[in-house]
Amino acid sequence: MSDRRVVCAPRRKGWRSCPMAHEFLRVKSREQVLKEMEGFSPVGEEEVGLLEARDRVLSRPLVSPEDLPPFPRATMDGFAVRAQDTFGATQGLPSLLRVAGEVRMGEIPEIFLRPGEAVRISTGGMLPEGANAVVMVEYTQGLDEGTVEVYRPVAPNENVVRVGEDVASGEEILPAGWSLRPQDMGLLAGLGLGSLWVHRRPLVAIVSTGDEVVPVCETPGLGQIRDLNGVALAALVEREGGIPLRMGIVPDQKERLEEACREAIERSDCLLLSGGGAVGARDYALEVLGSLQGAEILAHGLAVRPGKPTLLARVGSRPVVGLPGHPVSALVIFHILVRPLLDALCGRRYPRRPPPLRARLARNIVSAQGREDYVRVSLHEEGGELWARPVLGSSGLIRTLVQADGLIRIDPRFEGLYRGDWVEVEPFP
Amino acid sequence: MSDRRVVCAPRRKGWRSCPMAHEFLRVKSREQVLKEMEGFSPVGEEEVGLLEARDRVLSRPLVSPEDLPPFPRATMDGFAVRAQDTFGATQGLPSLLRVAGEVRMGEIPEIFLRPGEAVRISTGGMLPEGANAVVMVEYTQGLDEGTVEVYRPVAPNENVVRVGEDVASGEEILPAGWSLRPQDMGLLAGLGLGSLWVHRRPLVAIVSTGDEVVPVCETPGLGQIRDLNGVALAALVEREGGIPLRMGIVPDQKERLEEACREAIERSDCLLLSGGGAVGARDYALEVLGSLQGAEILAHGLAVRPGKPTLLARVGSRPVVGLPGHPVSALVIFHILVRPLLDALCGRRYPRRPPPLRARLARNIVSAQGREDYVRVSLHEEGGELWARPVLGSSGLIRTLVQADGLIRIDPRFEGLYRGDWVEVEPFP
Repeated sequence: MSDRRVVCAPRRKGWRSCPMAHEFLRVKSREQVLKEMEGFSPVGEEEVGLLEARDRVLSRPLVSPEDLPPFPRATMDGFAVRAQDTFGATQGLPSLLRVAGEVRMGEIPEIFLRPGEAVRISTGGMLPEGANAVVMVEYTQGLDEGTVEVYRPVAPNENVVRVGEDVASGEEILPAGWSLRPQDMGLLAGLGLGSLWVHRRPLVAIVSTGDEVVPVCETPGLGQIRDLNGVALAALVEREGGIPLRMGIVPDQKERLEEACREAIERSDCLLLSGGGAVGARDYALEVLGSLQGAEILAHGLAVRPGKPTLLARVGSRPVVGLPGHPVSALVIFHILVRPLLDALCGRRYPRRPPPLRARLARNIVSAQGREDYVRVSLHEEGGELWARPVLGSSGLIRTLVQADGLIRIDPRFEGLYRGDWVEVEPFP
Repeated sequence: MSDRRVVCAPRRKGWRSCPMAHEFLRVKSREQVLKEMEGFSPVGEEEVGLLEARDRVLSRPLVSPEDLPPFPRATMDGFAVRAQDTFGATQGLPSLLRVAGEVRMGEIPEIFLRPGEAVRISTGGMLPEGANAVVMVEYTQGLDEGTVEVYRPVAPNENVVRVGEDVASGEEILPAGWSLRPQDMGLLAGLGLGSLWVHRRPLVAIVSTGDEVVPVCETPGLGQIRDLNGVALAALVEREGGIPLRMGIVPDQKERLEEACREAIERSDCLLLSGGGAVGARDYALEVLGSLQGAEILAHGLAVRPGKPTLLARVGSRPVVGLPGHPVSALVIFHILVRPLLDALCGRRYPRRPPPLRARLARNIVSAQGREDYVRVSLHEEGGELWARPVLGSSGLIRTLVQADGLIRIDPRFEGLYRGDWVEVEPFP
């Protein structure tokens, strides 16, 4: 058991336990927590077929097994020529070349091009031996079936892709940690890479807690709420490349929570706890996680609003994030902390995220100093400028999540921002 | 057969057929083609489970079946009170309230709150009758088990979400045409909407053509190329919400192409033809499409570079896009035309795309007047500014696709742009 384990003082019944020294010590800034996340390693690798590789992350650098193209290719429709035969050609004094035949698509040309000859070729066709350039059909005029006039000179290699010019054999095409886009898959297809080594998608267990939480399919009684966090978190995990493993709902009982956590950690690469609202439930979580074999509490509380009651632990090599129960806070914490954690677990070194948008603030915002504030905003255009309008309403209102297009971050040093200020909006993907 | 059908003049063997009047007439601008795309309707609808609904597009507006919350909920830990009992409370002169009990999570409180009383409550707990506000625990101090001091007044409804305040029963929550994000799914879960009506994902047939094209798993001979467009297009279709249906490779033979197109159109909602490089192959496509039952050629050629030899047709209600054979051109045309077409077929009225980024051009670009130019750029930061560096190399180089982060569009009226000019970059998703 780690020597950094936190032991909780007994809680006075019905009262919030007094903040203890360790709670203050373990409240961390976002930067500190992000630093902790760097300590988590990517899960293992697996081989997948190219057609299933979209958005998968390369676990090894990709090295080209061959030259692309493997033969000199025309990039235009026209005539394959020896460039020197066209030097000096003009509209008034064209080069006159003998048409020695045609390159058929997909075949090796049988012709050897001699001086003064031209061969018809289509885009993608293989240059015959002897030829070193292609004249575009637009700059030619057929005199008869056997002769063509060329009106413009071409340089050697003009309108031609040379052997290995696109990709050379043995060259690194893409680095480890790269997530594959459709165009990357196209290149790999061109090289005949039918399967690839990628990182496994991390299994992310999701445990919802709270006496008041019921499954989505049930009709909640008064005082109860459906497990909406479980659904939203599963969708978020999937979007970020993980495989969600929904472990159901656990009531606010220490033993039940302990059992659920132990099982979840055994079966997955990462555990997300979606916290119940009850006073003291967070203390259970802290106590339970601290008591597991190989556990270490990395952060207990975050200097971020919304999302202060966030918990980060490590159980062996596996990260555990205790998310706040408020759906809005849970989403903000997912956005700013769980996404980078999943990047680490997925081995994603080049996350492809929309960059922040510059917008002007549509109304004043007040913020407390000493903590980062994340404010939900909706975006609209007005007078040719992008405006960010803070979405009003407490973080208890789920609707505000749906109305928001992204988040702005207010620096802990600021007391607020004024209408018209320029802000950076992190758009929701 | 449509009266707008185009009949091709016989092609002289081995020569590019002369551009005919209809070819010039059918060359359209991007705006004109986008206008044509609006004529295509969304495919039908289907019911899906909420957990499978991410990125699916609502086919009907979503109306809330119930009030959320269905009971007045605390949004803070503290004490449920009658607001008027706290009016005038200060640090020096706190309100003294009798603690009448505790609200248990997930249960209906049995207490009726009388004047002068307070009840312990956690975030998410149901307010007892008689209470109309919650005092945060931070502004209270327990005197003994039965009495609490309140240091700050609360207004009625403070720290409370009223019945239906989040979502009222019968209210439209999300419009038809909306694509569902994780947070939207959370809200729907909260309302118990376990299944939804969404648009079917359109089946998009992909036919690769060209005598020189071989399947990805085969080793191409000299002069041949693997079907990389087929792979890239399938991945792009999937990313944009369609279901790709790869129909294989068809050689440059009119009868084979006709058979493949007929079958593809029967089996799918949309057909993408990935053109072979051979001179004349595009004429086959035009002829074949024009001859199909209920066909109408909407555009034959696009005033866009790269991507001029793009073909747009309608066969009955189904769109057909003939994409250029060059992978780079095919990707550009997918980006600027097929994406909006898939938006129409998916019924997506609120496409969620990263907005264009403002960047400065890292080098001069020359462009021909009279057509739109799309230039691949890579992005980097320098001196606190975002710079867009044009990716050099012919559109025959597949590698340039992988190096690019997005596209800039050069207006047909411009002859080029200078280094340092501000440009808008459309990032690849």
